[in-house]
This record gives sequence, C-alpha cells and structure tokens, in this order.
Amino acid sequence: MSEITRFTVSLESDLLAKFDKKIEKQGYPTRSEAIKSLIRNNLIEQEWHRGGEVAGTVTLVYDHHKSNLVPDLLRVQHDYGKVILASQHLHLDHDNCLEVIVVKGEVGSIESLTSDLTAIKGIKHCQLTMTTTGQEV
Amino acid sequence: MSEITRFTVSLESDLLAKFDKKIEKQGYPTRSEAIKSLIRNNLIEQEWHRGGEVAGTVTLVYDHHKSNLVPDLLRVQHDYGKVILASQHLHLDHDNCLEVIVVKGEVGSIESLTSDLTAIKGIKHCQLTMTTTGQEV
Amino acid sequence: MSEITRFTVSLESDLLAKFDKKIEKQGYPTRSEAIKSLIRNNLIEQEWHRGGEVAGTVTLVYDHHKSNLVPDLLRVQHDYGKVILASQHLHLDHDNCLEVIVVKGEVGSIESLTSDLTAIKGIKHCQLTMTTTGQEV
Amino acid sequence: MSEITRFTVSLESDLLAKFDKKIEKQGYPTRSEAIKSLIRNNLIEQEWHRGGEVAGTVTLVYDHHKSNLVPDLLRVQHDYGKVILASQHLHLDHDNCLEVIVVKGEVGSIESLTSDLTAIKGIKHCQLTMTTTGQEV
Repeated sequence: MSEITRFTVSLESDLLAKFDKKIEKQGYPTRSEAIKSLIRNNLIEQEWHRGGEVAGTVTLVYDHHKSNLVPDLLRVQHDYGKVILASQHLHLDHDNCLEVIVVKGEVGSIESLTSDLTAIKGIKHCQLTMTTTGQEV
Repeated sequence: MSEITRFTVSLESDLLAKFDKKIEKQGYPTRSEAIKSLIRNNLIEQEWHRGGEVAGTVTLVYDHHKSNLVPDLLRVQHDYGKVILASQHLHLDHDNCLEVIVVKGEVGSIESLTSDLTAIKGIKHCQLTMTTTGQEV
Repeated sequence: MSEITRFTVSLESDLLAKFDKKIEKQGYPTRSEAIKSLIRNNLIEQEWHRGGEVAGTVTLVYDHHKSNLVPDLLRVQHDYGKVILASQHLHLDHDNCLEVIVVKGEVGSIESLTSDLTAIKGIKHCQLTMTTTGQEV
Repeated sequence: MSEITRFTVSLESDLLAKFDKKIEKQGYPTRSEAIKSLIRNNLIEQEWHRGGEVAGTVTLVYDHHKSNLVPDLLRVQHDYGKVILASQHLHLDHDNCLEVIVVKGEVGSIESLTSDLTAIKGIKHCQLTMTTTGQEV
C-alpha cells in the first residue's frame, strides 16, 4: 500500500466554492477524494491513448433469434480467448439479450475484438468501455 | 419479427468506394448490415439524450482492501435496487477488482447511481456505458 | 478578480508521482495549474449538461460548388442570429471550405442550430464544440 | 466531381420508420442525404484515429488580464506556424476572450499544439475539435 503525501493547491476562491458545491451534491466525502477522482480519470484516459495493457468491457445487445448470431458470437469470442476474462448474459425481454464481456490485454487486440463483434449480423449495439487494470492508478 | 423493406440510396462513387473498403476490413457481411449498424447507433444516441427507459452498464475498478468500500458499494447498490439487474465481479490481481453492474431504467436514475458510486472512497474508476433495451432498434 | 485560497490535498505518493510526471511532460508551470485545469473541465461539462447560457463553436466542412448550399447556410444562420456571434471562413483547397461559427446562448438553441446545419445538402461534416462563457469558471 | 452511384439497402421496416421520423424532424431533404451524413462521420472518425493529414479547430477561453498569458499564447502559436491556418478572437465580456484557431496538418502535431495551449497559465478551457480536410469524404 502506498504512503500518503500532503501538498498544497492554490486556487481562486470563486472557483473553489463552485467545485465544493458540486462535489458535495455528488456525495464525495472530502475534497481530496474528489480531486483524486479527477486525477485518476486523467491518467486512465492516457493509459488507453498510449496503448499497453488495459482492462475494459464490451457491451452487446442482440436478438438471440437471429440465425447464426449465437454461433458467430462464440466463434469470435474463442478467437480472442487471450483477452477475454469472463462474460455475463442477461435476458432483457423475450427477444433481446444484453451481454457484457470483460476484457484485459493490449489496446489493439481489444479494439480488434470490438470491431469483429460489431460486424456480426444481428448485433444491435456493441460498445467498448475503457477502464484501468488498477495497477497504475 | 419486422418485415424487411428495400430502398435505394444515391451516393458519390468515391465515397461509396471508401466506405466499402472500410466495412470489408471490419468484416461486415454486407453493405446493408454496415448501414444498419450506423442507423442503430444514431437512434441509440438519441434514446439516451431524450431520456426514457434505457439499458446500460456501470464498470467499476477498486481496491477491495480499502476500509468501508465494500459495505458502501452494497449500500448504494441496494438504494438503486429498482434499476440494477445483475452484477459480475472479477479479481484483476491481488488488490484490484473489476465489477460490472447491468442497469435498466430511467436515464436520470442511472446517472444518479453512477454519480453515487463514483463518490465512494477508494473507487479508482467508475464508467457508465449507454446501450439500448433493444426494443426501439 | 477573485482572491486566491490555499488548501491541502492528501494523495497516495505513487499516484502523485505519476500525475507530476504527466503534467511536467504537458508543460504545466505548476501542479496547482494542472489541478485547476481538471476542476474547470469538470465544471464546464456540468454547465452544458445542466443547460443555461454557454459558449461554443460549430465547425463545418463543405464543397462550396454544391448548388443551394451557400444560400441554405446563410438562411439557417440568419434564423439563429440571436446565438451567432461571428464566423470565419477558410479555403482548404479549390473545392473545400472550413467555416467556424462562434455561438453563445441557450444550450437548446445551439443544439437546434447544429442540427439544422448538419441537415443541409452538401455539408460534409458539422461538429459542435462546447466551451464556457468564462463567467462561471 | 464524382459520379453518383445508386445501390439498394435492406432494412427492417420498423427500424426504417423510426429513422425516417428522426431525420424528417432534423430537416434532412432526403433519406440518401441522411445516410451520407452517417457514412461521412464514420469515415472522418477513422481519419483521425489513423493519423495522417486532418483539419480541425482549437477553441480557447481565457481572461486576457492574466499576466503573460497573451505573450505565451503567441509564442506557442508561432512554434506551430506550420499547422495553424488562421485564428479568430472574440470578446465575450470585459474579462473573457474566446479564440478559435483553425489547424490543418498531422494529427500528432495538432494534439501536441493543443496540449501546449492547455498548459498555459490562465487558460480556462482548451478544446480540440476534429474535422476533415474534405478530400477523403
């Protein structure tokens, strides 16, 4: 576990008052926590931009009745076994499924997986979400 | 299941050639499928902008050793029981967890849940992903 | 002009070291300036989300040879005279123009202007950029 | 000027009805124009992702009273003379200025210019907007 450092920030009083009002409404326990949140998001954006190892999720919505969709989905997921950690499947209604695939690996492979999934006939939506492996932040 | 309609599109030949090249590389089986994909994404963006019932995921990364984090997470998730469908938990390494919460409900409630989760002390990243319930597209 | 307040932030040493490295590379003169930047961006996103008076730009690229495009552009811009402050026009090459329209006003009107400009026949790209009037940050 | 090609798209009737309703409300003259718009945006995103020559704007808001801000702005802009085509300056109120810089060149140089401008002391907001040179779409 990392040590805690304390440092001082100088800021216009007006700006600080507006920020304090916003983070109180959001429920942050302290100003330090809110600033830490901004710093982390900033570093995480950089992680993805730079490439390297990242974590993320791919969210899919599809109609499972579409012929060949389910075998196509399985085929693509097996092609990317190295970056797929797990998946979760939900029945939104009689026709529609929502599936979340959790991924970890190189940015390039994850983008390529997302592209292949998007192109499957019958996929209604395919969305990549970028997060962090937690090790850098 | 909806009937299929056929309609004609007029487009500059150069532009079409570039689009065809791109979608072939992405692996789309037909041009119709690629255009359907663009139309769906366009309608889904509108769904979220307009409010109403949507589906989505909230992706969290955190260090589970942080005191009070796990009870805080459970407390917030129980406050939003009406919009949370399921969650999945992964151990990224000894310290870091990735959790995906699948949500369905009003845009406002889902944004409010995300805001409350973000503010929990020890959360490293909290990211809302918007998708569709599948019924409108 | 607002007074300056000084306050203390507590942060894990590892996280601070990574942030310091990043902002030094970006050229920020001090850590306070970098954190101020994050706080401002966070408040500006909120301004647009909440509605109210904002500033922004609409960037257009088009081929000026397209019949009716220039009169259509002028007609739409005159319909929104209340939110348009100025515009700048550049000749990218023999065919293509880039035009930037600076806007200030209600979020709703600005989004509606952007939508009307996007729909003009011959517009290749139309992009709304959100910024601040500067008064709140 | 490129020739026009006509081609046929097959789509679920329900989905087409929703799309038609949306684009009529937005004011598109024809369905072809709306689909062309989606195709162009899709290709333009790819242009920026891939690197190469692009066009764009950098929007800045700042308080011109801040000492050294104006000389710093000019210094950075002169360092990037190769990618800056023009700039436009507006007085939002007694203190706040909005400046739009139109850029054209390699993605990397434009991102580097944006980063250097963001880091100038007193800049309230700095936002890069990506568009196309028009030649590829």
